[in-house]
Amino acid sequence: MRKKSKINKLRKKISRLKKKLKEKTESTNPVSPLAPAQGFPDLPIISGVSFATVKAGVKYSGRQDVMLASLCEGAVVAGVFTKSETRAAPVIDCQNKLANGSSGAAAILVNSGNANAFTGKGGAAAVENISSAVALALKISKNRVFTSSTGVIGEALPWEKIVDKVADLANGLKEDEIRSAAKAIMTTDTFPKGASASFDISGQSINISGIAKGSGMIAPDMATMLVYIFTDAKIEQAVLQNILNDLVKSTFNSITVDSDTSTSDTVLIAATGKSAAKEIGSQSSLEAFSSALESVMKDLAQQIVRDGEGATKFIEINVSGARSNTDAHRVGMAIANSPLVKTAVAGEDPNWGRVVMAVGKSGAKADRDLLAISFGEILVAEKGMVSSHYNEEAAARYMKNSDLAISVDLGIGAGSATIWTCDLTHGYISINADYRS
Amino acid sequence: MRKKSKINKLRKKISRLKKKLKEKTESTNPVSPLAPAQGFPDLPIISGVSFATVKAGVKYSGRQDVMLASLCEGAVVAGVFTKSETRAAPVIDCQNKLANGSSGAAAILVNSGNANAFTGKGGAAAVENISSAVALALKISKNRVFTSSTGVIGEALPWEKIVDKVADLANGLKEDEIRSAAKAIMTTDTFPKGASASFDISGQSINISGIAKGSGMIAPDMATMLVYIFTDAKIEQAVLQNILNDLVKSTFNSITVDSDTSTSDTVLIAATGKSAAKEIGSQSSLEAFSSALESVMKDLAQQIVRDGEGATKFIEINVSGARSNTDAHRVGMAIANSPLVKTAVAGEDPNWGRVVMAVGKSGAKADRDLLAISFGEILVAEKGMVSSHYNEEAAARYMKNSDLAISVDLGIGAGSATIWTCDLTHGYISINADYRS
Repeated sequence: MRKKSKINKLRKKISRLKKKLKEKTESTNPVSPLAPAQGFPDLPIISGVSFATVKAGVKYSGRQDVMLASLCEGAVVAGVFTKSETRAAPVIDCQNKLANGSSGAAAILVNSGNANAFTGKGGAAAVENISSAVALALKISKNRVFTSSTGVIGEALPWEKIVDKVADLANGLKEDEIRSAAKAIMTTDTFPKGASASFDISGQSINISGIAKGSGMIAPDMATMLVYIFTDAKIEQAVLQNILNDLVKSTFNSITVDSDTSTSDTVLIAATGKSAAKEIGSQSSLEAFSSALESVMKDLAQQIVRDGEGATKFIEINVSGARSNTDAHRVGMAIANSPLVKTAVAGEDPNWGRVVMAVGKSGAKADRDLLAISFGEILVAEKGMVSSHYNEEAAARYMKNSDLAISVDLGIGAGSATIWTCDLTHGYISINADYRS
Repeated sequence: MRKKSKINKLRKKISRLKKKLKEKTESTNPVSPLAPAQGFPDLPIISGVSFATVKAGVKYSGRQDVMLASLCEGAVVAGVFTKSETRAAPVIDCQNKLANGSSGAAAILVNSGNANAFTGKGGAAAVENISSAVALALKISKNRVFTSSTGVIGEALPWEKIVDKVADLANGLKEDEIRSAAKAIMTTDTFPKGASASFDISGQSINISGIAKGSGMIAPDMATMLVYIFTDAKIEQAVLQNILNDLVKSTFNSITVDSDTSTSDTVLIAATGKSAAKEIGSQSSLEAFSSALESVMKDLAQQIVRDGEGATKFIEINVSGARSNTDAHRVGMAIANSPLVKTAVAGEDPNWGRVVMAVGKSGAKADRDLLAISFGEILVAEKGMVSSHYNEEAAARYMKNSDLAISVDLGIGAGSATIWTCDLTHGYISINADYRS
């Protein structure tokens, strides 16, 4: 029995050491080769929003792991969330709080390191405790505190560690700390993600600044895409929610790294109404706002793909000529999620036969003999067979680029869609499989 | 200009050498560690069926790459095929020929090395030419010649090479050559696949022998699962077709390697009626036949998974307590196709959080707080959180087995399903991505 307990002790030690090694490996992950060359952009300050971050030691040590965003009186918040049937406690809480669509001072608190997902009844209690502490510190309604958690699934969230730091967070709020916030919400991300847009209505400017985390939909033991967007626009909550619902289709729902969906995916947008511009409501102002917001959302979505685990290639898939936009989206996703296509791209192989396969399995209406496929500007297949102009060497040279475009024209309708994804590499397997080996 | 043409020549040479190296690598692929220990089984001879194989040099050199099966007068044939919208020419031809459901002497010819898929109008002409040659040699109707092709997509099938060998095939037919047939249809398979079952009706035996190829749904430039089953049972074509349609759900449609579907997937079953047993028709004979056939189909399906590209673990996923069998199947497939779950298994990591994630994204009805998950006999999660009895070390030890079971009980209904898959490893990436690197 003694020997057995000694063996168990040693095993536990090994397990601890492996965990440390893993954390070390994570924290020193080299920045993705697809990261934007210019680094984190200068984001315009959004009047009415301030940020603070803190080291709470939820799981990581030695880094900021909790961020608080405080939103002024009169702010409206809208959100979209994972459709997962096993949604995490903070997601369910946000959905409940947004259901009434009210406005007023509000706060967003996000921790990394623990997802508070699949944590039973205790998960909801943890959200409640954190919300209460933030409400008390900021003197706002508990129903206006929105939280997200990202990290390990199935471990109780050490909410006391977060509650202990709420006063520090409330005292440290600053308008120009959005970059720190973007860093605090990272898990296995290799770079913080930010994007912005500004436009004028009758000479008065409106600004939008957003941050995101996500390294694929997934990470070792972790799984989440989180996005927070702030704007000084004056806009009704219901209008903002409708615009957000509409724009997620062509942005965050048009990316995939590995087809896995998180239990915690969250996009929140807050509008403070502090801009001097008039309220968004006229057709032209709605269009200008939607267009600016879409550019921010698309930029953040693409940055998430560029930080895909193990990614070495950024792939844009353009589908046209489909029976409907829905069919086009389905074809694009089938190509983007095909391990065969993704590994071919990793191997710089212009393997259009695999694209044909993915089109065929998508479930969308297709006619083999009307299909045309291009890699970049190179037409590889048309009329149900390889193009007579196809030059394999030119295609192989094209595949050496780090940003690639695959275009598919189905030739049967007017539906179109664009999807972004990355390749599937040994790096992906190493990050996700080699933990215990 | 001279220099440029020299560079191009050298590039072509490199490309040729790489191709050779690839072929060499393929032909010396080590046998999957999950292959059946006993090797290819002894399959009972099916009276009324004979086989021949030949080296036609369709793509591979130095190996048998075409097989012919000849079926006696009175034989019936049934089939199920890929649902791909970009189906290969031989698949469309088989579907047309089976549409009338006639009986009579027949033949099945299969080549490896070229899929005759996405080959335009020329693809159908190639099938026509091969069918005509076989019909002439065996003195049967052209409408009773069924062909399959597996291998490269998008290259014209050199049908002349096959037609040239049809006389040799017809002269070489033997009852006991099913093993050679199983080998001739292999592409990147690492072992030939066969299975059989026998049972009695009123003291008269009925035999079923089947062969399959498939290394996942996929292979470098290739993509196909092909299955040919032969029985001496007396059975009407329509009855056989119905039984086959029913049994594919729990067998070939319950396996996945990487979620990719081929343009050529084919399952053909031929019944010769040569058994002395009475015709299959009574309830008890239908049940006995279905049960025996299902065991053959399940065995072949599992062997395909065991030959999954790069596979090191065979995973059985048992789903119970779902709202319906369809929902259970959906949950099982979501788990089996999740790159996160598959890489965790490769890493011998009992990462049940990823199973929760996969259940959540499946689209099936689920209640987080009713979900129970087991790895083997080890209950890891229940009531929406980690089980109080869960022992991580025991689970980690269990994951070291090469055959694993993951069980999910949704706790809301009586629907159930079993799915088989394999892990996702560096080997998979190497086989599919490293061609040009």
